[in-house]
Amino acid sequence: MRLLNYLLDGEPRYGAAVAGGVVDLTRRIGRDFSDVRALIAANALADAQEAVAGQEPDHALEDLVLLPPVLAPEKLWCIGVNYAERNAEYKDSSDLPKYPSLFVRSMSSMTGSGQPLEKPKVSDQLDYEGELVIVIGHGGRHIPREKAWSHIFGMTLCNEGTVRDWLRHGKFNVTQGKNFDRSGSIGPWIVTADELDPRDPHDIVTRVNGEVRQQDTTERLMFPFDFLISYLSTFATLKPGDMIVTGTPTGAGARFDPPRWLNVGDVVEVESSRIGVLRNTVAAEQ
Amino acid sequence: MRLLNYLLDGEPRYGAAVAGGVVDLTRRIGRDFSDVRALIAANALADAQEAVAGQEPDHALEDLVLLPPVLAPEKLWCIGVNYAERNAEYKDSSDLPKYPSLFVRSMSSMTGSGQPLEKPKVSDQLDYEGELVIVIGHGGRHIPREKAWSHIFGMTLCNEGTVRDWLRHGKFNVTQGKNFDRSGSIGPWIVTADELDPRDPHDIVTRVNGEVRQQDTTERLMFPFDFLISYLSTFATLKPGDMIVTGTPTGAGARFDPPRWLNVGDVVEVESSRIGVLRNTVAAEQ
Repeated sequence: MRLLNYLLDGEPRYGAAVAGGVVDLTRRIGRDFSDVRALIAANALADAQEAVAGQEPDHALEDLVLLPPVLAPEKLWCIGVNYAERNAEYKDSSDLPKYPSLFVRSMSSMTGSGQPLEKPKVSDQLDYEGELVIVIGHGGRHIPREKAWSHIFGMTLCNEGTVRDWLRHGKFNVTQGKNFDRSGSIGPWIVTADELDPRDPHDIVTRVNGEVRQQDTTERLMFPFDFLISYLSTFATLKPGDMIVTGTPTGAGARFDPPRWLNVGDVVEVESSRIGVLRNTVAAEQ
Repeated sequence: MRLLNYLLDGEPRYGAAVAGGVVDLTRRIGRDFSDVRALIAANALADAQEAVAGQEPDHALEDLVLLPPVLAPEKLWCIGVNYAERNAEYKDSSDLPKYPSLFVRSMSSMTGSGQPLEKPKVSDQLDYEGELVIVIGHGGRHIPREKAWSHIFGMTLCNEGTVRDWLRHGKFNVTQGKNFDRSGSIGPWIVTADELDPRDPHDIVTRVNGEVRQQDTTERLMFPFDFLISYLSTFATLKPGDMIVTGTPTGAGARFDPPRWLNVGDVVEVESSRIGVLRNTVAAEQ
């Protein structure tokens, strides 16, 4: 199932993407499960599947304003350096890290697929980072690695958009450059783990105006999904709907010489074969 | 007014601390404003004041399980190095920073006043950091510094508890050591800005088992409250109920030689004269 959030007449709703459009789940089961996060928390995927079975789509996908597929996760974790060769891009001669780098984004820094990606007034260094996202189903603390896969509800995509010259403002941490309003995007939907085995290799590609900039596969992750779930749950209880943005391959705009920043009108696409395409056009902050 | 969140028969409620106890606001105005955050967003402090006027307390404060005074802020920003002499504690010969260091905590890392502060199974290095907290009232983006004060709804206190040996796990960022479940606390209540002028000097003291470990005043902040609000709003729209944890004075346990970590049974108090006392006892993770 492909679960998504969208606006209808300005009100947030959720539904399932099917052939030919979107089936409105808020209308069918919204009283029992108010949003995608509540559906996940109630372990109610079967209810959603039953509600969708045999239904005609209510909306054409292109008529909808899509929102991130979890609107208010308790936690939006982002992994900093994960694909092979990413560590070398920093050119600081450091050894391969023993643990992943980790930071947090506010959901206010994320928009949905098809919505404008916001180039801020105060910087010309908006950059893309295509990433695969794990969405947590069953929560838990101290999850052993061998049981971690069963905690994945599904997967989605992220353009973990970054404002480079605000990344190292502080003594530590990259928070500022990772939290500009609508500088990133998540979506277009969650593909649930019954339709896509998170353990399989997953490809990830990022294109800017059709040109491939990043391309890799989860087979080359230094910290695979099961490690991340086990590691994060050592210190924080994972909750249904929590999202883990699992790191970006080499080839962000900052790594070119000279750097290739995003400009107004650029189209950024993040794609994975079994998930779909997350697409945003860069627009100037109003 | 002193606004707080608490549990009654396991259900979250909110109220006002008054002489002799707590007036239940959920019962009186909860239909219109579901929680403290909703009250702030609706700019409805006057409704709360009217509801409390002349009422006898419904509960004794000591009978209640207190929760953080905003349960689910969109953003919980934490400032890393702010009081004078804090930069020197790092002994890295770095110049004074031009911008504040910034990181994010999940609310799952925070408990309320009077609740157990959790010493994790995987570390013996739980540490305290007493801090003043600004709670945002009116939101906004690109807030000029001269207008920033008017965006403060009130102030509260934080023990920004830190697990030191997990702080630098990653290549960048301090996320892990700042996000252990219930390793920190916020409260006991928000004192609203009509009762306390955020522009005045505010004292902050941290005690462990009665011994003063940290003591300072906001007169010595490198990045005062109005700067922080203006700076943060450059990249992210501040929302009603957002909390900014404004940095800790010198004297955390890690700065002693040898370090003085928190142990099970230790009582940590964070106090500011015009706000009150945030008090937690350290307990082992179950």
